[in-house]
Amino acid sequence: MITKELFEPRHIVVIGGSNDPSKPGGRVLKNLIEGGFRGVLYVVNHKENSVQGISCYSDVSLLPSNVDLAIISIPSKPAIQAVKIMAKEKNCKAFIVLSAGFSETGEEGKNLEEQLIDICNEYQATLIGPNCMGVLTPHYSGTFAGPLPELSFDGCDFATGSGATAAFILENGINMGVKFSSMYSVGNSAQTAVEDILEYWDETFIPNKSSKVKLLYLEKIEKPSMFLKHCQSLIKKGCRIAAIKAGTSEAGSRAASSHTGALATSDSSVEALFKKAGVIRCYSREELILAAAILQFEPLKGKNIAIITHAGGPGVMLSDALSKEGFSLPALEGEKAERLLSKLFPGSSVSNPIDFLATGTSTQLGEIIDSILNDFQFIDGIAVIFGSAGLFDVSEVYKVLNEKIKNSSKPIYPILPSIIVAKKEIKHFFSLGRVAFFDEVRFGTILGRVYNTPFFDEDEAEQISDPIKIEEIISKNSSGYLPQSEAIALLDAAGISHVSEFIINQESEIEELNTKLPFPWVMKVVGPLHKSDVKGVYTNVKSLTAAIDIYNKLICIEDAISVLIQPMEKGVEIFLGAKRDKLFGPIIFVGLGGIFVEVLKDISPIMLPISTEETLFSLKKLKGYKIFEGVRGEEGCNLELLIDNIKALGQLLDYAPEISEIDLNPIIGNKNSVNAVDVRIRITK
Amino acid sequence: MITKELFEPRHIVVIGGSNDPSKPGGRVLKNLIEGGFRGVLYVVNHKENSVQGISCYSDVSLLPSNVDLAIISIPSKPAIQAVKIMAKEKNCKAFIVLSAGFSETGEEGKNLEEQLIDICNEYQATLIGPNCMGVLTPHYSGTFAGPLPELSFDGCDFATGSGATAAFILENGINMGVKFSSMYSVGNSAQTAVEDILEYWDETFIPNKSSKVKLLYLEKIEKPSMFLKHCQSLIKKGCRIAAIKAGTSEAGSRAASSHTGALATSDSSVEALFKKAGVIRCYSREELILAAAILQFEPLKGKNIAIITHAGGPGVMLSDALSKEGFSLPALEGEKAERLLSKLFPGSSVSNPIDFLATGTSTQLGEIIDSILNDFQFIDGIAVIFGSAGLFDVSEVYKVLNEKIKNSSKPIYPILPSIIVAKKEIKHFFSLGRVAFFDEVRFGTILGRVYNTPFFDEDEAEQISDPIKIEEIISKNSSGYLPQSEAIALLDAAGISHVSEFIINQESEIEELNTKLPFPWVMKVVGPLHKSDVKGVYTNVKSLTAAIDIYNKLICIEDAISVLIQPMEKGVEIFLGAKRDKLFGPIIFVGLGGIFVEVLKDISPIMLPISTEETLFSLKKLKGYKIFEGVRGEEGCNLELLIDNIKALGQLLDYAPEISEIDLNPIIGNKNSVNAVDVRIRITK
Repeated sequence: MITKELFEPRHIVVIGGSNDPSKPGGRVLKNLIEGGFRGVLYVVNHKENSVQGISCYSDVSLLPSNVDLAIISIPSKPAIQAVKIMAKEKNCKAFIVLSAGFSETGEEGKNLEEQLIDICNEYQATLIGPNCMGVLTPHYSGTFAGPLPELSFDGCDFATGSGATAAFILENGINMGVKFSSMYSVGNSAQTAVEDILEYWDETFIPNKSSKVKLLYLEKIEKPSMFLKHCQSLIKKGCRIAAIKAGTSEAGSRAASSHTGALATSDSSVEALFKKAGVIRCYSREELILAAAILQFEPLKGKNIAIITHAGGPGVMLSDALSKEGFSLPALEGEKAERLLSKLFPGSSVSNPIDFLATGTSTQLGEIIDSILNDFQFIDGIAVIFGSAGLFDVSEVYKVLNEKIKNSSKPIYPILPSIIVAKKEIKHFFSLGRVAFFDEVRFGTILGRVYNTPFFDEDEAEQISDPIKIEEIISKNSSGYLPQSEAIALLDAAGISHVSEFIINQESEIEELNTKLPFPWVMKVVGPLHKSDVKGVYTNVKSLTAAIDIYNKLICIEDAISVLIQPMEKGVEIFLGAKRDKLFGPIIFVGLGGIFVEVLKDISPIMLPISTEETLFSLKKLKGYKIFEGVRGEEGCNLELLIDNIKALGQLLDYAPEISEIDLNPIIGNKNSVNAVDVRIRITK
Repeated sequence: MITKELFEPRHIVVIGGSNDPSKPGGRVLKNLIEGGFRGVLYVVNHKENSVQGISCYSDVSLLPSNVDLAIISIPSKPAIQAVKIMAKEKNCKAFIVLSAGFSETGEEGKNLEEQLIDICNEYQATLIGPNCMGVLTPHYSGTFAGPLPELSFDGCDFATGSGATAAFILENGINMGVKFSSMYSVGNSAQTAVEDILEYWDETFIPNKSSKVKLLYLEKIEKPSMFLKHCQSLIKKGCRIAAIKAGTSEAGSRAASSHTGALATSDSSVEALFKKAGVIRCYSREELILAAAILQFEPLKGKNIAIITHAGGPGVMLSDALSKEGFSLPALEGEKAERLLSKLFPGSSVSNPIDFLATGTSTQLGEIIDSILNDFQFIDGIAVIFGSAGLFDVSEVYKVLNEKIKNSSKPIYPILPSIIVAKKEIKHFFSLGRVAFFDEVRFGTILGRVYNTPFFDEDEAEQISDPIKIEEIISKNSSGYLPQSEAIALLDAAGISHVSEFIINQESEIEELNTKLPFPWVMKVVGPLHKSDVKGVYTNVKSLTAAIDIYNKLICIEDAISVLIQPMEKGVEIFLGAKRDKLFGPIIFVGLGGIFVEVLKDISPIMLPISTEETLFSLKKLKGYKIFEGVRGEEGCNLELLIDNIKALGQLLDYAPEISEIDLNPIIGNKNSVNAVDVRIRITK
């Protein structure tokens, strides 16, 4: 519930405002005053008459009744009292509770936090926090962080679930020249989470005015579908989103839980969500700000990069890093390359990297950039490395660089390694509105991350194959694993292809079956759940004698009911399965079967609804992808048919929420067919 | 050839010394003067009477004849003239040629560079460069880089093949508080390469005095055995070495070649060399300096890390990063943990991360560190995250941190994220001799790199199995692939185990063979080189009828000479092979067979001589390692036998330099035997 009073308050009160800027209540007031808030500021402080030049109210109850936003920096218990009075009596519709001492401290604090939520919900007021750093917008600086970045409409919007992290990330940004347009620290996310901020950004987005770069730091995602919806919508409006989801390892998850009470979310759920949402995944403050810096440039439209450098080594390292990320560094050749070379000092090279030597001048840099943009249009982006050996001022070079960046429709990334020697020049470069990278390899790695994070269009919704039949099967079975025949019927109803199956209960049926099903066969015991463990699976059965012999072995296994016979399929062994996560809904897992699943854990998670493009992307990301294309003389797998099956599985999971778990393991795929040869479905009612 | 005059010159001349500090010749002179060189400085400059307060010689020939070291900063052609006179007439034994315009510019320059080498070799003088940044030692500052780091005996020694990179790396170091004790920029490595500097470090190493951290930047390694020998020796003396080898991708290699004329070296050769040498591999300036900073601390002796933080988010991200690298974050529990918790503010957590909140004090930090060191001795290292929200000065905290780091026998790593807000405090922290990390995740990643780079003891040299037989086989065969029987004989002579083989030339022999070799068999055509391509391999042959049938098919294949029959081995499919690199000698490649080699390229390269420990480490690094241990009901492979075979292969390659290529693909290994089932050996005379 986000009210307009949070974003454009006309009257703000700081409850607990103080004269001491080393206290949050003092610092936030100082920031509000210095940040040039144009509305009316009130302060509540029962010890002082006046605080930072503003006369004080000694008690909340004495405030006028038109305060839009209250920023609260007093201990947790009196904070609740204050919120209650403000909401009930003063018509206050927005609260930023900086105070700690709530759910992050244990049971008692959790109780207090719930009271806070109840009050705000009752009076339809927005609650940011508690235990947060506050809010920074062009309208007001409602945060005690410092130093504050200069806000700019073309900077990044930033929402974060951890306060101190936010402060550090702002510093990372300032250090690289990255600009911000807002910061929302939601602390314990009691009422308002990062997802709600995303919704607000989405709903208030104004083309050519709103910031197009959104940065997120998350320790929990409790509203994944809200997250997904608004990320997708924002991206469709032209935004890019980069995010950290911390707490994915077991130790990290424990740490996140003790920090912001985050529930454990499996890393594959996060991976699936970010993939579908088109979010660039970062793992550190440094990566987030590198991504933010890269997103300040025109989007890179292809893989061809030119490196311009005045120093060999960094050019070599950047070449390695970009190659690792799948970029190309096409050589510049021919007459135009020769002409360019002739303008440079002897010993220069234009083969790409274009190395114009330590003695290279600003004029030469300009000529190189112009030549690349005009003569080598297959180049999609340029990285310029220019530091200083300390011999001369490089201001002129950075001036040219700034002009070229400003006027180019292709991205020109400046890598300025001399963080100490050229400190002054870099600072000036920032003041022109530019960002800069300091390490060529880290730049190259994150450029790859940004470029290789696609956004997928959704497919048109398709009708599920036989909904009546599905409902019938689900309703007549109780919770647990479905019997084999029911599971098969469910696959049929959903349109998931599988091999034909024949259930045999008597030895005599085998001969008869042989007339319609040619060898080789697969024979499996029916009854025990884990067939392999009880030696209940025989493959490549080639003769009647062998089949009869095996039948008699299988039927004697404990719990055996009957014997199932299938044709022996040949092709790629594929694993397809799904689990339903309480918050994230069904996550489908697809990978190659056998050792790929068991040893290499080479599985891609995908969220519903299934999109063709995204599924193909997920398959291509698998380490063993080449096997789908066919290796070692094998013919490979028909990916279109495989994706059809994955889509049908997605529809089934969407239609029947009772399915809690499904395993199609293996599926055997070749050029002509993709069939499940084993299935296990669990329903939970 | 490194002369003592390079390291401890008493008289230095700067040829081309100038008054203009924006020129290399001016800056190097300025650095020499300001660096406090205690010997005598001369300058040659034919335009000036006096330069930077030093009276000039107008010509090299007028110099006195006792100049130990000449630093040369004039164009390439006159430089050669100057070197000749200095070497021949002035008894000069060391040259640092800063000038560019040599082999990096093409054929003509290469010619000039060879003249330079010839002169220096003839007069037994050391040549550093050309095209370099110079040398920085506690004795003199013979470099034009700037600003120069303060040198300290406990800092890092640094050798580099790229000048500008060196300058940037020095800046990276200064920025993190990393100290240096020397810097050698070898430029084109005409006579003296990074390997020679390593040799010098090794031979002049003085325990408790010489620096124990060596940093390298390399674009080429032309003397790998020299590199290996001195790295191993230095590490045995207590050093750690971190290195960048740039130019490993195709694009990077092209860039390196145009930069310093580096020959392409395959990345696997570098990987094998670094692994055997115990060198920590870095891929960027940032990683090299992070490794250098980590190496300033006491070595980490185990995997248990405690994180102390005043900010939740970075603690969570560091937990994730450390987990990813295989570290543990054991929870602190029990009475002692409770006692520690009672000393912290409400809401703190000691479960690990120990989060003592944004309000945490320096006293609390001291108590936490003491408690971990005294009460939780299973903790091997501590990471402390402490930034500033800008509310108060954190000097006191950093003072405590400094004291604890200084007095602890376990490493305590400071992560200080507030690079802007706490700039002053961080600077003071550096002045106390400390280093600091700024990003917790990058720190965690490189800590993992450092910790997970082991150093292996060599095995005692073993005698090769049958040298006379090996020599006999090699000498009687000409260049090319050995005939099957000869290859098998060579394996026998080297002690490499393989399956028994029977060559059959007549159908009638099959029945006879069956009396001594039970089914199932493998049958292969003998003659064609690529047997699979001509459908010349049949496995799992189970009956006499089938065997006769197959024999007749095989013998009809084009170029078929006879048919080879082997028992059908069951077990893990292993790839083992070797190639001989011109510079690096034989590199052995080991991995799992089939898709692991063909699709996943999951292969470990190993250099000679083979060590048991290193080989086991290499096998464990394979993605599919678990398969050796046995998965999916398979029994796995006897690693001891496998390593015996790899060692025997190593001995064979060492003994017979004529073997240019060998493939044992596959080897089949189970618990009882590890046998090659196919072999291809190429000899080149």
